[in-house]
Amino acid sequence: MSYGSTFAAWRDATPAWPDYTRHAFVQGLGDGTLPRDAFLHYLKQDYVFLIHFSRAWALAVTKADTVGEMRLAAGTLNGLINKEIALHIKTCAQAGIDEATLFATQERQANLAYTRYVLDAGHAGDLLDLLAALAPCVMGYGDIGHHLAATKTAGTYGAWIASYASDEYQQICQDVGGLIDAAVARRLGDDPTASPRWPALQARFAMATRLEVGFWDMGLDP
Amino acid sequence: MSYGSTFAAWRDATPAWPDYTRHAFVQGLGDGTLPRDAFLHYLKQDYVFLIHFSRAWALAVTKADTVGEMRLAAGTLNGLINKEIALHIKTCAQAGIDEATLFATQERQANLAYTRYVLDAGHAGDLLDLLAALAPCVMGYGDIGHHLAATKTAGTYGAWIASYASDEYQQICQDVGGLIDAAVARRLGDDPTASPRWPALQARFAMATRLEVGFWDMGLDP
Amino acid sequence: MSYGSTFAAWRDATPAWPDYTRHAFVQGLGDGTLPRDAFLHYLKQDYVFLIHFSRAWALAVTKADTVGEMRLAAGTLNGLINKEIALHIKTCAQAGIDEATLFATQERQANLAYTRYVLDAGHAGDLLDLLAALAPCVMGYGDIGHHLAATKTAGTYGAWIASYASDEYQQICQDVGGLIDAAVARRLGDDPTASPRWPALQARFAMATRLEVGFWDMGLDP
Amino acid sequence: MSYGSTFAAWRDATPAWPDYTRHAFVQGLGDGTLPRDAFLHYLKQDYVFLIHFSRAWALAVTKADTVGEMRLAAGTLNGLINKEIALHIKTCAQAGIDEATLFATQERQANLAYTRYVLDAGHAGDLLDLLAALAPCVMGYGDIGHHLAATKTAGTYGAWIASYASDEYQQICQDVGGLIDAAVARRLGDDPTASPRWPALQARFAMATRLEVGFWDMGLDP
Repeated sequence: MSYGSTFAAWRDATPAWPDYTRHAFVQGLGDGTLPRDAFLHYLKQDYVFLIHFSRAWALAVTKADTVGEMRLAAGTLNGLINKEIALHIKTCAQAGIDEATLFATQERQANLAYTRYVLDAGHAGDLLDLLAALAPCVMGYGDIGHHLAATKTAGTYGAWIASYASDEYQQICQDVGGLIDAAVARRLGDDPTASPRWPALQARFAMATRLEVGFWDMGLDP
Repeated sequence: MSYGSTFAAWRDATPAWPDYTRHAFVQGLGDGTLPRDAFLHYLKQDYVFLIHFSRAWALAVTKADTVGEMRLAAGTLNGLINKEIALHIKTCAQAGIDEATLFATQERQANLAYTRYVLDAGHAGDLLDLLAALAPCVMGYGDIGHHLAATKTAGTYGAWIASYASDEYQQICQDVGGLIDAAVARRLGDDPTASPRWPALQARFAMATRLEVGFWDMGLDP
Repeated sequence: MSYGSTFAAWRDATPAWPDYTRHAFVQGLGDGTLPRDAFLHYLKQDYVFLIHFSRAWALAVTKADTVGEMRLAAGTLNGLINKEIALHIKTCAQAGIDEATLFATQERQANLAYTRYVLDAGHAGDLLDLLAALAPCVMGYGDIGHHLAATKTAGTYGAWIASYASDEYQQICQDVGGLIDAAVARRLGDDPTASPRWPALQARFAMATRLEVGFWDMGLDP
Repeated sequence: MSYGSTFAAWRDATPAWPDYTRHAFVQGLGDGTLPRDAFLHYLKQDYVFLIHFSRAWALAVTKADTVGEMRLAAGTLNGLINKEIALHIKTCAQAGIDEATLFATQERQANLAYTRYVLDAGHAGDLLDLLAALAPCVMGYGDIGHHLAATKTAGTYGAWIASYASDEYQQICQDVGGLIDAAVARRLGDDPTASPRWPALQARFAMATRLEVGFWDMGLDP
């Protein structure tokens, strides 16, 4: 489970990382104690989240400097729209929630704050600002999926866990990690931590991580 | 106190409007019971808010269709940067908070959610989407200033109240109201409520109003 | 060959449409008289064009109001990056031009003017402004491909003609036409030509058409 | 006439700089041989140019990282809208061209290519990308005004020359030069030419300079 050296540096400098990836909501997924209505509430909010998160990956395509960066960002966008959102629709359908209901979900403040922050990071800065704000969600779910697959004590949320622990999702995390490493090298050189921009990028990653914590908090409050 | 017919229609269809303009925080400004540390906490968050709100007015300049729309948006931007933000700096300086401290304020989730929502409304849509998201703050403060100037029972927050009750600020509200009416007429014609876009614009105004309520709630929680 | 009613209305009101779709460059493709170096010059410029045109379709994803609009825009983006650009790379490779050379092509003014106009239409306005600026390229090539497949008198540029006359490309034109009709109905109602925005959208379509004429002119001037 | 060290470095590495600042159009302004209809044609196109150039400075406000950057960008925007555009309106009015005619000017390809390139530089990248694309116009006109004031042999275009040679305009160039130096230091450190981003910024400056040459060429072709 290696998602590149830039991600590792950002994560290791972010005290809130374990608050996010080992949150009570995550533990409840692993031991099956998470109430069903909290899970469904989370799924509905996450559906809206994924729509705006997809918009942010589309924004990344418009901010790429190379065809390679464009292809990776467009590929991630495609995976989100055609795989991850589709999985939410299917899971919710099994729970009796149709897509019209999903789309009509009233967005909670914690949800809105997160995705609009990511989009604004992209509009305000360059591709690196955007990638630093996108990384915690992509890789954090990879981390959580990998961790829960190894430690879960109940099968209640096994399908959710399996999707983020899957080879396919882990590969997305590695691809995005590679995209970030290459984008950083291209713009900041081979000693990126010495760049004056490093603290600002680090701060974007840290803010997005705190907003992930806020998202789980919201998930526990249906 | 008339800020134009579009604003009046949006406000009258927004149940949360009184929750915002007659919030407990507002009442505490009027009767002087608002704790000083809540006020200073609010001022610091509002300084950061105004920075991003100014960015949203600058975005409006980029989305204008006429030179008249550009001038009004640029004029509002100027007023924000050179008057309203300056007033915050002065008030905070009197309370022993310097501008570097203001700028370093850790943005709270309710604050971030609001300004980034407004910015995204502009990027996702056209000038009308942006103006519908900008209106509740501009005109709501005009409404609050006007109301508190007439009803306040203590002078504790008199300077704050006076600035939003001032002829100068009321004129800004009227100018922005005129800009909105003209921008709506230009794009939706003379029966704008019949346009399919009306409900979406109404929803943007209502969301920004709810986010204002969240901002006051945050203000009471230093 | 029907690409929707909105496209048909925009096209029929655009005097420059035949100047674009029956341009001397187009005739030279059909009768094989187009000099090979002009064709290769065009292909190189068109490769750069497609990169920025893809960015514009990615921007459309960020400006969609529904998941359906997002999926169609993301699907078109995917087709551009993985099919149309790939075809250019292959055709150029057969002519001895590698992708690094393609990417290093110095963008000509006529090329730059066109794609940046389309991108700015999206940033300045809403999805309709962007779609009106995107339509002439997508549908014009469908029109040209269909026309040349039926009238060509030489096989010199048969592969190029076949790709735009193909069922696959014609389907893209129909899908985009459907996207435009639905996006217009959603925002302007069932009598869109009566909307005050109609002339502005018509003007965007006409400007993009003139920029297409400029692109062919540039193609004849290697 | 010093507009900062970053500008000097970019200019000195741009072979097209003299093609722009000592263009035949510029010489015609100095010796009075520029035909009046070419000058009026230029003024009309430049009016449209300034509208979109103002939009680009507004975009800079949205991409600033500090309040200082915001204030300088907003101040430049204000100068453009309230001084430079006003001067065009006045000069054109004296020549019998009213503002409605100015606003209705059909934008030429060379004009459109330039401003939309600058706007896209801002949307695609960060503040530095935008500033590198904005600099040639701001500082080039300062260079031209300064040069023509010292060398002109006819008074025909004396008012135009005086406005760009004025202390006020020269001060704007110095302020923008200071903004660029500070923005570069903040993001690239104290050895910016060693940054991997330097060639890309240099290329943006060079492209905008070439587009200025195209603008003068267009000016000579009424």
